[in-house]
Amino acid sequence: MSLPKDKTPETITVGDAPKAVVNRLSFYLRELQNLLASGTATISSSQLGKRLGFTDAQIRKDLAYFGHFGYPGVGYRCDELIAKIKSILGTDRFWPVVLVGVGNLGRALLRYKGFDKQGFRIVAALDSDPDKIGRLIEDIPIHGLNEIQAVVSSRGIRLAIIAVPANDAQTVANDVVAAGVVGVLNFAPVTLILPPHVHNVGVDLAMELEQLSFAVVNSPPKS
Amino acid sequence: MSLPKDKTPETITVGDAPKAVVNRLSFYLRELQNLLASGTATISSSQLGKRLGFTDAQIRKDLAYFGHFGYPGVGYRCDELIAKIKSILGTDRFWPVVLVGVGNLGRALLRYKGFDKQGFRIVAALDSDPDKIGRLIEDIPIHGLNEIQAVVSSRGIRLAIIAVPANDAQTVANDVVAAGVVGVLNFAPVTLILPPHVHNVGVDLAMELEQLSFAVVNSPPKS
Repeated sequence: MSLPKDKTPETITVGDAPKAVVNRLSFYLRELQNLLASGTATISSSQLGKRLGFTDAQIRKDLAYFGHFGYPGVGYRCDELIAKIKSILGTDRFWPVVLVGVGNLGRALLRYKGFDKQGFRIVAALDSDPDKIGRLIEDIPIHGLNEIQAVVSSRGIRLAIIAVPANDAQTVANDVVAAGVVGVLNFAPVTLILPPHVHNVGVDLAMELEQLSFAVVNSPPKS
Repeated sequence: MSLPKDKTPETITVGDAPKAVVNRLSFYLRELQNLLASGTATISSSQLGKRLGFTDAQIRKDLAYFGHFGYPGVGYRCDELIAKIKSILGTDRFWPVVLVGVGNLGRALLRYKGFDKQGFRIVAALDSDPDKIGRLIEDIPIHGLNEIQAVVSSRGIRLAIIAVPANDAQTVANDVVAAGVVGVLNFAPVTLILPPHVHNVGVDLAMELEQLSFAVVNSPPKS
């Protein structure tokens, strides 16, 4: 594998970590945050694994993508590993986010408490409904869709959440990308076509239920 | 590995498929449904892979957990593979679901269009607020939390969606499990402790944003 000139081998390793590994980092981070909040200062990989249902080898292998952590005979210092994982995930900084679509789902997202403590904050919302434009919901101003460029550039926004009907999602995605957004969290039930430099995560809540139905159908009968 | 007497080797293989494989089945299913809806009757593993950003080897390996599919020189028949994946995921049948918590998120979920077409339907909702109990939202009746046992058993419900505040989530989870629920989709930002026979999927929307911030921070600079 040849390395592009503008990347060091180290950043290649980090950026090339499989998606599943990056996803598990989020789980490790949440559990470490819970542990620290409940007064636990250090934890071994096997204790952490037991709490999350992973093997200790899995945890050590995942973290090894990003460096060398932990202390022999002590394990991981929770605060140190939290800081390190946040730095890897990029959440050691504040990410302003724009929400497009203030329907039922959009309003629920404006009130969702889980973003803020991980470093994300919806700082502005956009909608096409004249009755909503100009209002505040949860202290967040609702702008018209035509203000997208001004909102994104004035607030230094790089991430957008799309919560509009399926038929409008691609147009809205094109507009936020044109305004400078490079990461899109899409709740609309369509596959978006975006330029290669834009990262795209689709949220399909039925998929989560499919994981459950699979597990229920394929689990051994309760004895 | 020894096989428990009540399981055939085949069901072991299916039930033991890694979670990531089961998750990818959902992606394959969605894309095949889109293809069929747009009039495509057959597709090769490499064409399907290209549409989803997976290698054809990955797709063949994932499907091999569950049997032998596809025809030489033809590829997969979309309708046949859709039916097979739905049978694997258990969504070849109808799953009535109970929603607990009719706040903003709960109301958005009652109106979410993505469940029905995959075989899931919220047939009843529960809340503790006397102003909501007895009302219909999207034609779905809102019951009091004390009716949980009656609702779950009379409707043959096995799956629950929990959309209550964090402090109430564990109590509510205990109650739905006592009523007979064996799969819980949890939107509350807490880790639930559930009996081993109950399957649990947690939805943490900040995790999806963390995948994006990771990708943005670690992607090569746009040139």
